[in-house]
Amino acid sequence: MFDEATAVRAGGRSDEWSADVRHEMTIVNGHPNGGYLLALLGRAGLAALDEPGRRVVSATASYLAAPTVGPCTVVTDVQRRGRTASQVRATLVQDGRPTVDVQLLAADLVDREPDWGDEPPPAMPTLEECLAHAEAHPRPPITGDELPPLTKVVQATFDPATAGWMRGRPSGAGEMRAWLRFVDGRAWDPLALLLAVDAVPPATFDVVMTGWVPTLSLTAYVLGVPAPGPLRLRFRVGQIVDGRVDEVCDVWDSRDRLVARSTQLAAIRMP
Amino acid sequence: MFDEATAVRAGGRSDEWSADVRHEMTIVNGHPNGGYLLALLGRAGLAALDEPGRRVVSATASYLAAPTVGPCTVVTDVQRRGRTASQVRATLVQDGRPTVDVQLLAADLVDREPDWGDEPPPAMPTLEECLAHAEAHPRPPITGDELPPLTKVVQATFDPATAGWMRGRPSGAGEMRAWLRFVDGRAWDPLALLLAVDAVPPATFDVVMTGWVPTLSLTAYVLGVPAPGPLRLRFRVGQIVDGRVDEVCDVWDSRDRLVARSTQLAAIRMP
Repeated sequence: MFDEATAVRAGGRSDEWSADVRHEMTIVNGHPNGGYLLALLGRAGLAALDEPGRRVVSATASYLAAPTVGPCTVVTDVQRRGRTASQVRATLVQDGRPTVDVQLLAADLVDREPDWGDEPPPAMPTLEECLAHAEAHPRPPITGDELPPLTKVVQATFDPATAGWMRGRPSGAGEMRAWLRFVDGRAWDPLALLLAVDAVPPATFDVVMTGWVPTLSLTAYVLGVPAPGPLRLRFRVGQIVDGRVDEVCDVWDSRDRLVARSTQLAAIRMP
Repeated sequence: MFDEATAVRAGGRSDEWSADVRHEMTIVNGHPNGGYLLALLGRAGLAALDEPGRRVVSATASYLAAPTVGPCTVVTDVQRRGRTASQVRATLVQDGRPTVDVQLLAADLVDREPDWGDEPPPAMPTLEECLAHAEAHPRPPITGDELPPLTKVVQATFDPATAGWMRGRPSGAGEMRAWLRFVDGRAWDPLALLLAVDAVPPATFDVVMTGWVPTLSLTAYVLGVPAPGPLRLRFRVGQIVDGRVDEVCDVWDSRDRLVARSTQLAAIRMP
């Protein structure tokens, strides 16, 4: 589903692509997941660059308006082709209106050990011991009676110690730890990591139950090629102040290697 | 100097501004500091928005080419005007060529205590006990015999425990801690925090002495209004792998309040 949902087709012009924002990749009230949009635009950017072997290693999305499920156009602008990295901008357009604007950095991504810095993944129970959304009773408050469609594509299973929010009892620590896998068994790859860094509910749910927490700006770095197997995420709240929150998400692969890191600024209304 | 160096003048068109990239704000080999460029473009973006009270709360810069000292044009594109936040893009153009592309988020920034999350500043010696660049012997390897011109505008004084790189002896911890102040006594404000988050040498110097470490993408969040007095910075290396490094910089004001946080992806060549 991820590959279908991020497919881009060459449009009439060399800098225009057509795609479909898929319902399966939405979270609440038909809003597409922000990481999914990042991956969709990343794929369009790579298509525009057409530089074999290059992967998205950095992506920053500005969310200008809420995209809707359905056809869209992606306009790309190759800003620089470099020997070691290239830069391209991709903009999601619906009804002639830009809704998401992404700055992408593409480079070769070699599967190798870090030269320095290998932060270990957090200690957490096995995937089997963790809790999926569906196991929460009552359903997550954010979605009323229904689970987000995205949970049928990407399954996040949460460390019980950080899953109290599912029952309306946040731990107050401001941290979520979860395993992440594609329900259809698809393997993680660099492009899919752009989805992974934003694939779970806001870490603020572990502080206070609120309505949805819309991302204003999301930056993702892809640091490595993920090994086969599920990912582990640690999603942490930085500071909540004046209606905004910054959050950091770290992603490890099955070899305990940190393969992605994201930071985002989101809007939040305290009760 | 900071205010002169970031001044923008209305150009011929409503979306065009003229400015000067100042030598005083360069680091090595005439390269302007990345945080300075972020602040310059942030100021142009705010001018384009012309929304009183709005400050830059998020900024991401893509460095496309090395800008040179001298006149430049800033092209702005107001993408969205919102009730709680507005988004604008600003591009630095020299010789008809885009060199730095910035996505900005502007919002009202109220000076208040965080609702949640108040990470304390790291323990470090007093400003007087810390070491300025100029006190290092020999001079920082990155600049040969000369100190970066920027050090005469913004003085960073380093925690001796993290200043071994000045004498070519990195601690290996991958962390720098420093006090930061404007030499001319200018007070810190939200705009100047965009400079602060990138005002010290690469944290990688505390891991390995290399040539300059060019930033590829820099994202800064302004979380609060800084109180009068010097800032404290903690600049940390995440991971060095495959010729790239991610670094995080946290900035506290004199009230011990975290007022800014940045993350960047840079290019590094290991010896």
